[in-house]
This record gives sequence, C-alpha cells and structure tokens, in this order.
Amino acid sequence: MDTIKYLLPDSEIPKAWYNIVADLPAPPPPPLHPGTAQPLSAAELEPLFAKELIAQEMSGEREIEIPREVRQMLAQWRPSPLCRARRLEKALGTPARIYYKYEGTSPSGSHKFNTALPQVFYNKIEGTRRITTETGAGQWGSALSIACSMFEIPCEIFMVRVSFSQKPYRKALMETFGGRCIASPSRETEAGRAILATDPECPGSLGIAISEAVEVAVKNADTKYCLGSVLNHVLLHQTVIGLEALRQFELAEDYPDVVIGCTGGGSNFAGIAFPFIGESLRGGRKTRIVAVEPSACPTLTKGRYAYDFGDTGKLTPLVKMHTLGSAFIPPAIHTGGLRYHGMAPLVSHVQELGLMESRSVGQKAVFAAGVQFAKAEGILPAPEAAHAIAALFEEAILCREQGVAKTLLVNLSGHGHFDMTSYMKHVAGELEDYDYPGEEISMALSGLPVVSA
Amino acid sequence: MDTIKYLLPDSEIPKAWYNIVADLPAPPPPPLHPGTAQPLSAAELEPLFAKELIAQEMSGEREIEIPREVRQMLAQWRPSPLCRARRLEKALGTPARIYYKYEGTSPSGSHKFNTALPQVFYNKIEGTRRITTETGAGQWGSALSIACSMFEIPCEIFMVRVSFSQKPYRKALMETFGGRCIASPSRETEAGRAILATDPECPGSLGIAISEAVEVAVKNADTKYCLGSVLNHVLLHQTVIGLEALRQFELAEDYPDVVIGCTGGGSNFAGIAFPFIGESLRGGRKTRIVAVEPSACPTLTKGRYAYDFGDTGKLTPLVKMHTLGSAFIPPAIHTGGLRYHGMAPLVSHVQELGLMESRSVGQKAVFAAGVQFAKAEGILPAPEAAHAIAALFEEAILCREQGVAKTLLVNLSGHGHFDMTSYMKHVAGELEDYDYPGEEISMALSGLPVVSA
Repeated sequence: MDTIKYLLPDSEIPKAWYNIVADLPAPPPPPLHPGTAQPLSAAELEPLFAKELIAQEMSGEREIEIPREVRQMLAQWRPSPLCRARRLEKALGTPARIYYKYEGTSPSGSHKFNTALPQVFYNKIEGTRRITTETGAGQWGSALSIACSMFEIPCEIFMVRVSFSQKPYRKALMETFGGRCIASPSRETEAGRAILATDPECPGSLGIAISEAVEVAVKNADTKYCLGSVLNHVLLHQTVIGLEALRQFELAEDYPDVVIGCTGGGSNFAGIAFPFIGESLRGGRKTRIVAVEPSACPTLTKGRYAYDFGDTGKLTPLVKMHTLGSAFIPPAIHTGGLRYHGMAPLVSHVQELGLMESRSVGQKAVFAAGVQFAKAEGILPAPEAAHAIAALFEEAILCREQGVAKTLLVNLSGHGHFDMTSYMKHVAGELEDYDYPGEEISMALSGLPVVSA
Repeated sequence: MDTIKYLLPDSEIPKAWYNIVADLPAPPPPPLHPGTAQPLSAAELEPLFAKELIAQEMSGEREIEIPREVRQMLAQWRPSPLCRARRLEKALGTPARIYYKYEGTSPSGSHKFNTALPQVFYNKIEGTRRITTETGAGQWGSALSIACSMFEIPCEIFMVRVSFSQKPYRKALMETFGGRCIASPSRETEAGRAILATDPECPGSLGIAISEAVEVAVKNADTKYCLGSVLNHVLLHQTVIGLEALRQFELAEDYPDVVIGCTGGGSNFAGIAFPFIGESLRGGRKTRIVAVEPSACPTLTKGRYAYDFGDTGKLTPLVKMHTLGSAFIPPAIHTGGLRYHGMAPLVSHVQELGLMESRSVGQKAVFAAGVQFAKAEGILPAPEAAHAIAALFEEAILCREQGVAKTLLVNLSGHGHFDMTSYMKHVAGELEDYDYPGEEISMALSGLPVVSA
C-alpha cells in the first residue's frame, strides 16, 4: 500500500496556459486608475510590466501559447508528479482516494518558479535591464532570483523586514543566485522613508514591500516590476499545474470530486483549481473547489468584496477583490506566503460567481496536519501548503465518518525545508492560533477607498 | 540552449541492484574480526545487521533483486532525472557535453534515501523493533528518520555534537519525522562516557558516533544498526543511480567519457560509477572514473591502504580501506558528509585495481563551483556534491583548452537547501582551505592496528 506516482513525459507539458476568463459566465470587474477611477489602459501599465504580460493580464482568449523556450525551461522539472497518497489514506483510515500534485521538485522548491520563468523571459526579450519585486517568506523572491540568474538580469528584492531577520537562509539563497535583497521598509524609496519616519521600528508587510518595489520600477525606465501572485497573468502561468493534473487523472482512471488549495494571493490555488472549474463550466464533470486560508488573515471568508489598493502606499491600481483593507497587517503567523490583505481579483470573482467555496484554519491544526502528512508520505510540506492539507484531512475524515470513497486532490505547492524554525516551534508547542472577531475587521475595512465604478 | 532532461518511466526503475564484486578481476579482502583477525562469519554480524543485508554484504552475485515493495517506494521519486547542462556548458565556454544525475528530488533531498528505504524494509520484515545510526551533516540521519517513519520503526540517531549545535534545522527535520536525535559523544553509552571523561567538551566525530550507535545495537537484542555509507550493501543500493544513467544515455544517444562523484564514505560515488566500471569490465565501452574528496580529509589521495577500524571506539570489524587512521579528526570543513577517516573498502579495492582515479579539492574552489553551477542550472548543490562539480569544471575547462568535446557525467547527489550557513560564509569570504602535509598524516597513521592477515 504505497504511494503511486503518475508521471507524464516532457511532451505532455501543456502547450498553452488556460485562461478561465474565456469560460466565466460574467467578465471580471476591470482594474481602475487610482486617480480617475476609470478602467486602466494597457499603456498605463507599461511603466510597470512587460508588454506581453500586460496583454496576458487583459486577455479574454481561452488558450495562451507557452513560448517554446519557456516550455523547454519548464521541462527541467515538469511535468511535476501527481501522487496517490495510499500510506496517508491508511494512516487516516479513510475510504477516500487522496492525491497530491507536488510542486516542491522545482529548483526553488515551490510552484513560484512556474511564473518566475515566463515573467523574466518576456522581460528579457523586451529589453528590461533590471527587475524589482517584493517577497514575504521568500519563496517568490527565491524563484525570481533563480530565474533572473538564468537570464542574467539583475534583480532587487524588497523583503518584509520581519522575514529578513527571521529567515536568513532564504535571504542567503536569493543572494547566492545574485539577487540584491533589501529589508523593507527601506531608506531607498519615498514609500519606505515615509513609513520609517513615523515608525522607525516598523516590521514591514507585503503591502509596504510592494509599494517600494513598484516605486523603483516606475521611477526607472529600464526597470520593470514582477509580482508573484494576485494578478491574472500570474494565475495564468500556474495553470500548468491543473492542466497536467487533468491529464494525470486520465492515467489514474480517476477524477477528483474535491480540489483543495491554500490561498494567500491565490496563485497556487488558481493554478490547480481553474482548469477543473473550466472543465465543469464547459459542460464537463463537476468538482467541488475549496480554498483554504489562515484564520489570522481571513480574506476570502471574512473580507469585503470591494475595490482596494494592492499595496499599503496606495501606488497600485485599484482592483476589486476580497480584502481586509490595505492597511491591515496580519499577525506574524508562520506562513509568510499567506499574509496578504487581499486576494487575487480573479479568485474573488470566481467565488462571487459561486464556483468555489472557502474556509479558514488555525496554524496549530495546520502544523499538526503537516507533520502527519510528512510521517506518512515522507515529504515535509511548506506551512502554506499545510493549510490545504489541514482541509484535506477534514474532507478525508468526513469520508470516513460517512463511509464515502470520494477522490480528493490537494496542491502540495512546496517543501518545508526552509521552514524548520516554524516546525520546531510547533513541536515545542509554542504556536498560537489567531482568530479575528468581526469588529477588528470592520475597523480595518473602514479605510477602504470609495469607488463609484 | 537550455537544460535537457532525460526521464524514464517508472517501469525502468532497475529490477536488480548491480554488485560489482562479480565482475572484478580479484575479490575484495574480507572484513576481519577485531579480536581474532580472522575473516568474519555472517553469524558474527547478526547482532548488528538484518540477515538479508548481511547476505548482500557478502554476496558475489552480479544482480541482487530489488524487492517489489522497495521498487514501489523508490518510484515515489525515481527514476531521477539525468540533465544535459547546456546553460552551464555555455557559461564555461566548453565544447564538452555536461550531464548531471540529480538525486535531490528524493523526500530527504539526497541520494541517502535510496539505501535508507531497503535497509529499513529488511529490518521491518525481520522483526527489528528499533534502529540506531550515526549522522554527521544530517543527510543520512534525515533519510533514515523518514524511512523509519514510513515503516513505523523508532530510530535513534547519534549526531556529531558540532553538527548537532551548528545544524539545528537538520536535527529538527529528523525529530519532525519522529527520530530521536542525540548529541555524540553522549552519556548514553560506554563509548560516549569514556570520551567525555577525558574530554568533556569533545566536539565529536563520525567515528565516535558510530561507536555509540553500534554499542546500543549490540547490547539490545531487538535493536539493529544501520550505516549510511562505506559497506558493500549500502554501495549496492546506490547503484540504481548509475543503472538508470546508463539507460538514460541510450535515450540521449551519448555515453560518458568521464564519470565524476564526490567521496566521503563512498556510496554516492559508487552508486554512479560502479555500473559504468562494470560495463567496461564486461568488455563494453571504457570510461574514466574520477573520485573527488576534500583536501582536508584526503583518504583516497593521501591515506594508506590497510586494515583499520570503522570507528573511533574500535568496536567495528577491521576492514581494508584507504584510511587516515581511526583516530583522525578532520577539521570542521563545511561538508560534514565527507569528514570520515576511511573509505568504502570496495571503492578502495577498485582504486587499487587501477579502475579509477582520485583527486582532492579545497573548499574555496568547491563553494565557488557550487555557486557557478547554481547560477547556470538553478539548482544549489549540497557542498558534498559541489566537490564533484569542482572537478567537473576542471575537466570541462581542459576540454576547452584542448578543443575536445568530451561527454562528462557528474553525480549531483543532493540539494544544498540545508547548507545555507556554509554558502553564507563562502559569500562573506570566510571559508579557509586546509591541506594536510605528509607528516601529519603519518602521525595519524601510526596508530593503525597491526594485522597479519
């Protein structure tokens, strides 16, 4: 009763990304200019992003071709394995068939490399000379730094100060690949200096780091900005995960009843879920889609669906999303990758359309699930991915109680080899759960911009 | 010009391990009883090892079947990829064709899991209730701890004290999977107490940790000992690496002129090299075989080929190997996995037969090579594997200077995600090279046991 792996040959790496916008019953609300509240034009985004990425961001085409060069680079580790977790099924005593799609074999150890490669590729061919970005826990910063080293483009990474101090190894990894890593808030930008002027000890947040990285790109014509989640084109690049999984389920002669992914900005979730939602939207088999977020940052479950800024400095366009308010600073839970005040607009829209559900879990349950998964399957999940595993366990136990043999699919988006400090705290019983009461969130939401559009 | 991956389907996982003993022109000298200096019987090893592992240790059969259950578990991540490193070739400006076999996708992040699984498997079916072992840098301890958690056998890992303190994350990984991790020398064994009595601050060594782990196994009938390298059966289990590579070179329509691996105890080197040596011994194509060791622990290049103990406490059998003396304590270089006073007897024998060559490299060159490889290929090598990469660079540059397009194969035995401290020291310019003059080694060798056999 061991793990079964379903592997595809390189020839089965998808030839096109899947754009769910083409199949949705209603178009997603457009991003707005923060000054005029009018829908943004492509030209207005050009100071920030490569043109091809802007075109993808705004595209309504169902399939967007993956360039041959990008497919060849993806082939270094893709298609990633789909595994049937039979030892875990036995450990949980469940009749459910549990599958996980494992993204931890990428060079950076997580799914983030799926989008780092094409983002840097398009920037390279369009002549970008420098790339800026932000990172929280460091998964995205690592992936971008590796991709930039492959394409020989310098990159500057604004890393949330609290992570910068707590995760010296992630910083070292980025620097080993040649990335320049700056603690945010920094003195290098107006946004950073403004925050340090009022709070010299500010621990930083993703929202602040985004402001700094965006500012540097806007002020320098040869510099573009890259984002690791949230935006349509980032979610698009991650759909290779779900597209491969669809094909692998054919090999397994099975099909998921439930697809589960964790959500911070929404990209690994969308990557595995959107192709399955697309199947059912086009008349195929229905699948329950479950997003799992930390109870300490409950964007989808307790946020408001409204126009808001993507960053604290209010430099980004306004996007309609589930948000806790761009001023919201989540507590220092051990899943830096999920500490974002908002949610991908496309994921938010899909939830509003009733095509998915969401729930939140506390970090004690998350780490307990991560350890139990590891003991059965041998792979230590990144704490972010362990959120999805905690929800998987709930579903598997429900199957046991109801005597139903459902097929469950979870996205194991990365390994936890850089997260041992957090696992040590879990083992020592030092982790706490955070749960937000309604009034705290109401307060955070009171600062939302008023948009009439 | 990107990386090309040659991947095999699960059905191509080898059905048998390859035992080089069957093809050698002379049999390897037998291990001796430390008291009588007579060849050991299988029965004399039974307090330490599972019977099937002893049979493999002493076998002269060319092929030893891999149990179906073990093959199924190997299939969770095997066959591992063989990659053509075209970006690296370009970066080095070499006409050489460079291939690496990547073992870092295993659950523990290195090749060690290839032998942890079968060792724990045979112990499980023979009724072992507890397993002891030692670990230096922690790659082996992690692999064994994960395998033990899969088979639900408790394990106790004596970890060299200096690594225990320096590598809290490796310790945390072992403990997360349920392993009990003990700093060695410890007060739990006579061997440990004897050393602490004379040196309470002793930083430990692999030789001492082996003594402790062996003592616990010998004194407890339900407990067996497992070793991560050195022994014939461990090298045997690693031959899946080279056997897969042979098959993958058929797909690539190429064949290596040079095969390169790093050596500490010798297992990852033997794993990739022995199947190629076997090919040439059976009349097939000739390949140059190169072992690479740290200049700070130059067993193959400066040690004596003689009978010696495998441990400091002189509890193990005497084995004929290249050794620096069992009392030799290598300096604290940043490659704990290569800090062993001896060498696998089978690798030593193969070198004496003139079937391979060896060289040593200093750690500055090693880490520089590791970083350059990472920037080109996106994968940060474990410092141990970076030794092999340093030698690969020498060969690739020779090809450039001579204008010869040789095919080079290197074993990339694991990733360096747990070795960021060492890479940080490299980047900060804090690493030193150690080179042993002859007289120091002569002194260490003066304590060798006198064996007339």
